Amino acid sequence: MNQEQLRTLLEQVREGALDVDAAMARVRHMPFEDLGFAKVDHHRELRHGMPEVILAQGKTPQQVLAIAQRLLAVSQNVLITRTNAESSAVIQKNLPGAEHFPLSGAIRFWRDKTVRGKGKIAVICAGTSDIPVAEEAQVTAEVMGNEVIAIHDIGVAGMHRLMSNRERLSEARVVVVCAGMEGALASVIGGMTGAPVVAVPTSAGYGASFGGVTALLAMLASCAAGVTVVGIDNGFGAACALVRICDQRAARA
Amino acid sequence: MNQEQLRTLLEQVREGALDVDAAMARVRHMPFEDLGFAKVDHHRELRHGMPEVILAQGKTPQQVLAIAQRLLAVSQNVLITRTNAESSAVIQKNLPGAEHFPLSGAIRFWRDKTVRGKGKIAVICAGTSDIPVAEEAQVTAEVMGNEVIAIHDIGVAGMHRLMSNRERLSEARVVVVCAGMEGALASVIGGMTGAPVVAVPTSAGYGASFGGVTALLAMLASCAAGVTVVGIDNGFGAACALVRICDQRAARA
Amino acid sequence: MNQEQLRTLLEQVREGALDVDAAMARVRHMPFEDLGFAKVDHHRELRHGMPEVILAQGKTPQQVLAIAQRLLAVSQNVLITRTNAESSAVIQKNLPGAEHFPLSGAIRFWRDKTVRGKGKIAVICAGTSDIPVAEEAQVTAEVMGNEVIAIHDIGVAGMHRLMSNRERLSEARVVVVCAGMEGALASVIGGMTGAPVVAVPTSAGYGASFGGVTALLAMLASCAAGVTVVGIDNGFGAACALVRICDQRAARA
Amino acid sequence: MNQEQLRTLLEQVREGALDVDAAMARVRHMPFEDLGFAKVDHHRELRHGMPEVILAQGKTPQQVLAIAQRLLAVSQNVLITRTNAESSAVIQKNLPGAEHFPLSGAIRFWRDKTVRGKGKIAVICAGTSDIPVAEEAQVTAEVMGNEVIAIHDIGVAGMHRLMSNRERLSEARVVVVCAGMEGALASVIGGMTGAPVVAVPTSAGYGASFGGVTALLAMLASCAAGVTVVGIDNGFGAACALVRICDQRAARA
Amino acid sequence: MNQEQLRTLLEQVREGALDVDAAMARVRHMPFEDLGFAKVDHHRELRHGMPEVILAQGKTPQQVLAIAQRLLAVSQNVLITRTNAESSAVIQKNLPGAEHFPLSGAIRFWRDKTVRGKGKIAVICAGTSDIPVAEEAQVTAEVMGNEVIAIHDIGVAGMHRLMSNRERLSEARVVVVCAGMEGALASVIGGMTGAPVVAVPTSAGYGASFGGVTALLAMLASCAAGVTVVGIDNGFGAACALVRICDQRAARA
Amino acid sequence: MNQEQLRTLLEQVREGALDVDAAMARVRHMPFEDLGFAKVDHHRELRHGMPEVILAQGKTPQQVLAIAQRLLAVSQNVLITRTNAESSAVIQKNLPGAEHFPLSGAIRFWRDKTVRGKGKIAVICAGTSDIPVAEEAQVTAEVMGNEVIAIHDIGVAGMHRLMSNRERLSEARVVVVCAGMEGALASVIGGMTGAPVVAVPTSAGYGASFGGVTALLAMLASCAAGVTVVGIDNGFGAACALVRICDQRAARA
Amino acid sequence: MNQEQLRTLLEQVREGALDVDAAMARVRHMPFEDLGFAKVDHHRELRHGMPEVILAQGKTPQQVLAIAQRLLAVSQNVLITRTNAESSAVIQKNLPGAEHFPLSGAIRFWRDKTVRGKGKIAVICAGTSDIPVAEEAQVTAEVMGNEVIAIHDIGVAGMHRLMSNRERLSEARVVVVCAGMEGALASVIGGMTGAPVVAVPTSAGYGASFGGVTALLAMLASCAAGVTVVGIDNGFGAACALVRICDQRAARA
Amino acid sequence: MNQEQLRTLLEQVREGALDVDAAMARVRHMPFEDLGFAKVDHHRELRHGMPEVILAQGKTPQQVLAIAQRLLAVSQNVLITRTNAESSAVIQKNLPGAEHFPLSGAIRFWRDKTVRGKGKIAVICAGTSDIPVAEEAQVTAEVMGNEVIAIHDIGVAGMHRLMSNRERLSEARVVVVCAGMEGALASVIGGMTGAPVVAVPTSAGYGASFGGVTALLAMLASCAAGVTVVGIDNGFGAACALVRICDQRAARA
Repeated sequence: MNQEQLRTLLEQVREGALDVDAAMARVRHMPFEDLGFAKVDHHRELRHGMPEVILAQGKTPQQVLAIAQRLLAVSQNVLITRTNAESSAVIQKNLPGAEHFPLSGAIRFWRDKTVRGKGKIAVICAGTSDIPVAEEAQVTAEVMGNEVIAIHDIGVAGMHRLMSNRERLSEARVVVVCAGMEGALASVIGGMTGAPVVAVPTSAGYGASFGGVTALLAMLASCAAGVTVVGIDNGFGAACALVRICDQRAARA
Repeated sequence: MNQEQLRTLLEQVREGALDVDAAMARVRHMPFEDLGFAKVDHHRELRHGMPEVILAQGKTPQQVLAIAQRLLAVSQNVLITRTNAESSAVIQKNLPGAEHFPLSGAIRFWRDKTVRGKGKIAVICAGTSDIPVAEEAQVTAEVMGNEVIAIHDIGVAGMHRLMSNRERLSEARVVVVCAGMEGALASVIGGMTGAPVVAVPTSAGYGASFGGVTALLAMLASCAAGVTVVGIDNGFGAACALVRICDQRAARA
Repeated sequence: MNQEQLRTLLEQVREGALDVDAAMARVRHMPFEDLGFAKVDHHRELRHGMPEVILAQGKTPQQVLAIAQRLLAVSQNVLITRTNAESSAVIQKNLPGAEHFPLSGAIRFWRDKTVRGKGKIAVICAGTSDIPVAEEAQVTAEVMGNEVIAIHDIGVAGMHRLMSNRERLSEARVVVVCAGMEGALASVIGGMTGAPVVAVPTSAGYGASFGGVTALLAMLASCAAGVTVVGIDNGFGAACALVRICDQRAARA
Repeated sequence: MNQEQLRTLLEQVREGALDVDAAMARVRHMPFEDLGFAKVDHHRELRHGMPEVILAQGKTPQQVLAIAQRLLAVSQNVLITRTNAESSAVIQKNLPGAEHFPLSGAIRFWRDKTVRGKGKIAVICAGTSDIPVAEEAQVTAEVMGNEVIAIHDIGVAGMHRLMSNRERLSEARVVVVCAGMEGALASVIGGMTGAPVVAVPTSAGYGASFGGVTALLAMLASCAAGVTVVGIDNGFGAACALVRICDQRAARA
Repeated sequence: MNQEQLRTLLEQVREGALDVDAAMARVRHMPFEDLGFAKVDHHRELRHGMPEVILAQGKTPQQVLAIAQRLLAVSQNVLITRTNAESSAVIQKNLPGAEHFPLSGAIRFWRDKTVRGKGKIAVICAGTSDIPVAEEAQVTAEVMGNEVIAIHDIGVAGMHRLMSNRERLSEARVVVVCAGMEGALASVIGGMTGAPVVAVPTSAGYGASFGGVTALLAMLASCAAGVTVVGIDNGFGAACALVRICDQRAARA
Repeated sequence: MNQEQLRTLLEQVREGALDVDAAMARVRHMPFEDLGFAKVDHHRELRHGMPEVILAQGKTPQQVLAIAQRLLAVSQNVLITRTNAESSAVIQKNLPGAEHFPLSGAIRFWRDKTVRGKGKIAVICAGTSDIPVAEEAQVTAEVMGNEVIAIHDIGVAGMHRLMSNRERLSEARVVVVCAGMEGALASVIGGMTGAPVVAVPTSAGYGASFGGVTALLAMLASCAAGVTVVGIDNGFGAACALVRICDQRAARA
Repeated sequence: MNQEQLRTLLEQVREGALDVDAAMARVRHMPFEDLGFAKVDHHRELRHGMPEVILAQGKTPQQVLAIAQRLLAVSQNVLITRTNAESSAVIQKNLPGAEHFPLSGAIRFWRDKTVRGKGKIAVICAGTSDIPVAEEAQVTAEVMGNEVIAIHDIGVAGMHRLMSNRERLSEARVVVVCAGMEGALASVIGGMTGAPVVAVPTSAGYGASFGGVTALLAMLASCAAGVTVVGIDNGFGAACALVRICDQRAARA
Repeated sequence: MNQEQLRTLLEQVREGALDVDAAMARVRHMPFEDLGFAKVDHHRELRHGMPEVILAQGKTPQQVLAIAQRLLAVSQNVLITRTNAESSAVIQKNLPGAEHFPLSGAIRFWRDKTVRGKGKIAVICAGTSDIPVAEEAQVTAEVMGNEVIAIHDIGVAGMHRLMSNRERLSEARVVVVCAGMEGALASVIGGMTGAPVVAVPTSAGYGASFGGVTALLAMLASCAAGVTVVGIDNGFGAACALVRICDQRAARA
């Protein structure tokens, strides 16, 4: 339930279109509901403008399923990140309408496709191996009501590939850059645009990439002022950061 | 020279108010000017909406002075970060109008105080020892044309201090959180607001803070989705990130 | 054999209720018994108020079984931690009365359920992924004679979930906090209560949690004075620390 | 102001011994007072049973002095930790009654010497170089109302020195162990006693002690179950942990 | 071929008991023989007093087999370390006389059991999980002609177990200590004996043992002067160090 | 398409031997071709003198196959590195002419065997376990048009093996040294020759080799001036560095 | 004494222009001369084509002076690196002809300015703070007989500065890139040129540059194949690597 | 007091040459004497064959002086390591007979120069910068009754310097190798000799030596089997290890 749904509900009560008991039934899940192993937080959307997200990693398939069922009962859009083969199968078998993204393991229930974010989000990745992370960012940004421009495989070793995508880059209000190895793409993009840039180090790479630590450090030390960073492979977190920026209520302030 | 100054200049040329030679004289420094030891980049403001900034650390006082003189000849606002006792004295003695901030070592020439950023920037710090970093962020945000709300000393160990500043926090469009030690304040603020949050780990602390590395890691691993991070003590970088967000042209997209 | 059992035995000898040979038979296992690959330490309970615990990790199932059999012959309560599928099956098949906890891999023989600890132990965890560690702590605390209050899934990103559990928290004499990611819950709990708080970093997380190292460092650097820390995922160790505190003899000092 | 002082005050109001305005004057500083650069938290003592403590490190001498003056106006006991030569001189010159401990840099105002903690606190250190950390722990524990048994220089390389202090150790209800180098003393003490043991790694050492990191890791990995750890050189934090344990109200629970 | 065998051979030549061609046939493999993928070094024994050892890890079973066959043709004793299931099966099937040690993966051909080392080698381990490393050390020391005293499971948390093995320890000329977790046993043993002590950190452990890094650092920082250290789980290397010490020719110097 | 092929093509156009449409057909793939998930960069050879290389790691077998098919349509030589069992099977089944190197996982299409590099490249490795990395370096250097001298298993612990290969080493113009463990071979080779030496740390080893990090650091800290280093196991990168050196056009400058 | 000098000397002996005693006097210092605290290695130039270099760091001024005097007696060119204020003063006072470079601390005796290296060496640095390292590289390359093209302050955040130096870059046979922060310049330059590129991470930077470690890792993980790396701030080592490449005898092979 | 002195004393008592009171006076300091801040351990020599050593680092000059005075009253030889300018001045002024070694900061009282160790100890260092560590090792070994062969400045980059010292090396029973940078000398020496080798990483170096960590890791990962390692710059510890080996009583076992 998001802010607009709450306002609508309250206006319906005021106008007599909804009686108090029915309204109570909808609202009573607030502020959260206790499943024992997890507090399902129906108010998060209300507070942050984001639909509920389930991190499947570290949970059993049954736990993921139970949480998803509760959320789908009250929420239009639900995102499950980092499923594995087992949990994605359980979800797809039991819950209709699941979009499954095998590279990143994301599962998406995207029933309300209204675009709410102001401005487009460019999701850029340096190489083919970074696509799973970019996919998680894109899936997240979309389910939260944003338009995405996806630009893949434009690493700095072939600067001309980057240059030929300049125009598409300029259409974006905000940019997420996913790169492994030395992560230099974040600095180069950060120097090319004045838009907000969030960098996501990826664990792709070899030699001295150390599972993404090298890219993480390099992005944090970027000589392009104003680039900010999230954790390794955290496409979801980067998308959330951009959703915060593009959120209309925030922009209204 | 920023975008508006360029537009004005070109319109003056078009309207005959400025002849071509005079325009040439102003523009000819572009794209950058070579001092030998440094390329002074007069166009950066034009590209990114930021005035030129000089990082004094790692430069001799004479190098800092020479670059500052060139920039002040063509730019209203100039920021020098991380001066030490020697370089700040040289600058203050030779260049009138310098505001010196001894905690952070920043020196500011703030001749055009027009507010350009859309929305206020909250600069929060967890403890007194984090103030130098918060100061660098505030000084930077202001010289780039933004209004700042400063909230100091509201660490998570005394949650009531945080709660009593809730209202001021809600006035901000974007938030920067400076904290050392375990940096938990970023997660708590990130959970309290839906606005963009940029976290700055500080080197303040002892015991197991490891010069800011602990706070850096903790902020990157924040359980509040959408918090992004810059390098240790990098108040300047955090401010630049927020300036990118609040920039009106970007907001227009 | 714990202190009370020893006192009882000696009093029986004094009163003639037990002859010396029988007493000798019970005591002669002291100080430890050599199985070749392991010294079974029957006196540990006597010295520290803790029943013997077997760490299954790094031992073969046969080694675990052999040690467990010896201990069960002389001790009411025995705890086996960190079994895997193979060793837990061997134990359950060969030894009656085993409680198996699959999330944490613990196996418990809990035949004497007397409560000996003074005050309740709150076992708190930040997210569903931290439950295995919390379970190990709870199982350990209980088998050592303590009452546990379990509070799950109250991470700092949703502060209201934490606030609504405030009362239950206040019932506890001591608190263990299990959290992964940035581990901020330890600081927040440490600031909310004056009771002893032991923090357990967990390996749950992603992005920049580095297998629990981030939470470990953050908990050690907690700005809430007096929070102490054990190793990553070491729910057992945290419980032992609290058992030391709640032990009545110590409290008597 | 601690809990007892508050109860006394309220009882005086109830009994008419104190009029409401006078009571208001004492209480109105609550919950905290804003000095601009620092929120002075007069209620901390009330919540946690600890007098206010000022960390001098990272603050200017003037900031330390200003905070100390406010606190001394309302609190019997005040502790300032980690002063340097400059700030300790400023404090000693301006505030009467300051005890200065040059090894640790602590300054103590100990006007109410009532013993409140239940049981004695043993403060043990492995070598002469660890004494500054042990001193910080002792000074802290005492100013918070506890009795301390100090045992210095009993490292594990000379086990007989440890053995000959066994009896003194057994008098303690809780133990803090300060050790650098490999920190093995924590494991040995942890194995000798069933009392709560808090280990403080110190930065003393050379060769492979890495500023205390080796001792920190070793203490966290102690094979003596139930030993807990605080940050490097954090004698203050260890003392606070023990104060939480010995606090009578908690023991009452 | 060791030094004594070479001397015998040359004396036989001098005395006419062996003709030159036969001697040539034995010696001609020197200094090493090229198998293409490996230089088989028949002279190592001659130079260092050690039989050839094959590290199976990182080699294919066929490579291990080929090298072993060459070595067995000219050498009485051969040691293969760190075989896995596949390579140990290949060796045992193809080469008679192989002793297989499944805990450590060592395979030993021990045809000449002459004791050459002066003094006994004590191989001590702290816990059951450290036995594989101790086994590798023992197998190595024996195949190189030394007598071993094995003492297992005497960690510092139960100091009495250690004390009761004091006498056996005093029989050893040199000592190897294998311990994981915090590795404190090395310091304690180092303080109890004046004999040479080589410490082997093991990867056994959990919580904060970090795969043996904690024990490695702690042993390097041991407060017992004169303890030396080899790499993690390197029982073989520790045994080689002790063999160098006990070697009679060296002792003769 | 390399520089010579481009020059030939353009000269054919100038001389009328090739009409413009045909030339266009050959050139039109430039600067790169978009497969959606990957930008296939046909110009890399032109810019750097290197044929296109596909890093199979991090790509699906189908992605690798699709890229390889495009490249083989326009390029004589193609190298695929780091295939696994699945992707190497797909490639070998679908594309004729594939040479498969199972130790390193490389697959090579080597249709133009012209030697273009000036001088021979020595590829040295310290032990049998380092051969996979040396193989990747050799395969790469050859497919890029260079002659290789391979010298295996000459680690520093047996200096005589190294000495007996001195002459072969002197034939090389440039040298690549692959070594794990402590990587000392790079320093020794660097001291023996004045030729360019590129060191490749390998992940082979145990004890304290930490997956190649030790060798990496040791090679970077080599006391032999002028040794340069690439990432762990990066035989491909080392070969590319040497190809840059031996490239005739560069040598011509 | 370099190879040519040796050949000349031997030819003079053969032709009777130099008698044997005089030749002996020149040669007898070979292979090295023992000053007690240092073996002065007059043959290094002969073996590697490099004049002797003295690393002043870690030596007393008197040690540096003594070694320099010996070397200047037999060698035309001598380089002293990393002097501090004290040692540079001692050298300049006692030895005529010293060129002092205060940014890097280098002192050069450059009496034979013959250019021996084939092709020019470009020394590039990203920012003003990297100049000391670039200076050390330039001074070294020159004293060893090479021509240097110096290009300063062309970091990736302002890509246009880089682009405008493209032509100068193309004149170089080999390139050294000095950069701190995230070191992305090495990747970008590596992608722009096919020439050999040696990257030098510098300790310049802040935030997350960690004294050059970030740049070091990023350069090792460069996505531009064939970039090699030396240690942090090691301009000397980078120059030596390039000298090895440009050396004519090597090029002749 | 060492074992021989104790035996002599007891024999004198038995033979009536010393009355019991006098004997008591000599023995009564045992097992240690309490100075408050330090337990002076007069029995260490007895247990380990080593005279008492005072680590000056981390102690005040007055503490060092007080301990030294006590020790000199009962012991012939005393060693003080790691004095600084202040503490060395205090010692030299107050205690006659002090030998001061300024490179390492050691101070030695060497009144009994009897050689007790069996066999000579070679102390080797790689470069001039490693001499302070080698000096500490030499001073220690000598004061404990051993003969030392010192060989300086024979790093692996100039292998011929090493080769020309081969004979001197062969005279040693045991060897200590001090090296910074990549520490390869330990591996090379370990391969050249079958004698016990203890490696000491030094903090000398630059580039990627990381204060000795690189050498430490490299020495631990040495491919020469049987090399053991002590902490960084720990010449004292290395000497103690060798003294344990050369001790005659141990050799007698």
